[in-house]
Amino acid sequence: MISYRKELHFNLPTRRGLVNITRDVEKALAESGIKEGLILINAMNITASVFINDDEGGLHQDYEVWLEKLAPEKPYSQYGHNGFEDNADAHLKRTIMGREAVVAVTDGKLDFGQWEQIFYYEFDGKRDKRVLVKIIGE
Amino acid sequence: MISYRKELHFNLPTRRGLVNITRDVEKALAESGIKEGLILINAMNITASVFINDDEGGLHQDYEVWLEKLAPEKPYSQYGHNGFEDNADAHLKRTIMGREAVVAVTDGKLDFGQWEQIFYYEFDGKRDKRVLVKIIGE
Amino acid sequence: MISYRKELHFNLPTRRGLVNITRDVEKALAESGIKEGLILINAMNITASVFINDDEGGLHQDYEVWLEKLAPEKPYSQYGHNGFEDNADAHLKRTIMGREAVVAVTDGKLDFGQWEQIFYYEFDGKRDKRVLVKIIGE
Repeated sequence: MISYRKELHFNLPTRRGLVNITRDVEKALAESGIKEGLILINAMNITASVFINDDEGGLHQDYEVWLEKLAPEKPYSQYGHNGFEDNADAHLKRTIMGREAVVAVTDGKLDFGQWEQIFYYEFDGKRDKRVLVKIIGE
Repeated sequence: MISYRKELHFNLPTRRGLVNITRDVEKALAESGIKEGLILINAMNITASVFINDDEGGLHQDYEVWLEKLAPEKPYSQYGHNGFEDNADAHLKRTIMGREAVVAVTDGKLDFGQWEQIFYYEFDGKRDKRVLVKIIGE
Repeated sequence: MISYRKELHFNLPTRRGLVNITRDVEKALAESGIKEGLILINAMNITASVFINDDEGGLHQDYEVWLEKLAPEKPYSQYGHNGFEDNADAHLKRTIMGREAVVAVTDGKLDFGQWEQIFYYEFDGKRDKRVLVKIIGE
């Protein structure tokens, strides 16, 4: 069994934002030399998500509107977590979108359907954040 | 380490629908010969889910009503994604239900609690869709 | 490849409640002797979740209020699942929070960001429940 570990680093200029990290994960996979196995890609911060969906701008705007409806940022005072912080909504939005994706590796490639792309979703930006890519296999 | 890969194929006659795929995953596991490891089961399309819950008809109807409340199909015009398509709600419903399940393999069997069953949830049917089963272990 | 399996047992005195299980998972990892690999931690019951977020009491209260808004417990009669049972909301809340977490193992430790903690979230307590910890690696 081989294992490979890599961190991706982010510092977004806005509170929320989406980054397509598919190429970064493919690069890590190529570096690992692993042909058959599993990749775990997870946010290392608890106010961000890693998820898989379509790279389509209209959908990304729909996510923003929808998450704001399900877990509104304001008023900050509605959340018990917002004593010294204002990011309770970021924890809830991340819960909807998920912490991690697990992807199969087959023949040295991400074993993906046609439209699957991997995204980092920042919900509390303007600071250093990390994503972990861990690959195990042979 | 052994790895095994299998695709499950679907073409549901309705826009939305649930299929219990537990037996299909057990069959793939038996074919793999793997006794100890992990199974990844994921939708390869971004408007469908794989998730684990109870095989109970009342609950499945509750899911339908609940998802329609959290991410309504209509009016189609409420979503930016719905320019050439009408399936933005399918992307959001899939987000709630999840893309994938990861299941332990112990003694050659799915290591499950009493009521755990694996489902495919279609949110944009009437077309060919796929699920990936990837097993790694020994 | 080595694999290790352990069950965690719960019987909460209340319908809902959160338990930080990070130390239990670390103990299982130490027992396994695995230095590089993946850990799957999943609820074996379908009315409970395993998820990763912050160990902060205000946030935990926010989760309670938020989940009750997205998937209210009462009136019980609103759910088709509640014929002989009253726990349909528990199945839906568990869906939002997720069944499982997958965590990387690096150098014999949980490969975590600073604030990541693993929680068991009970949505239908006052009975025996289980969580599975399955570790594979070397």
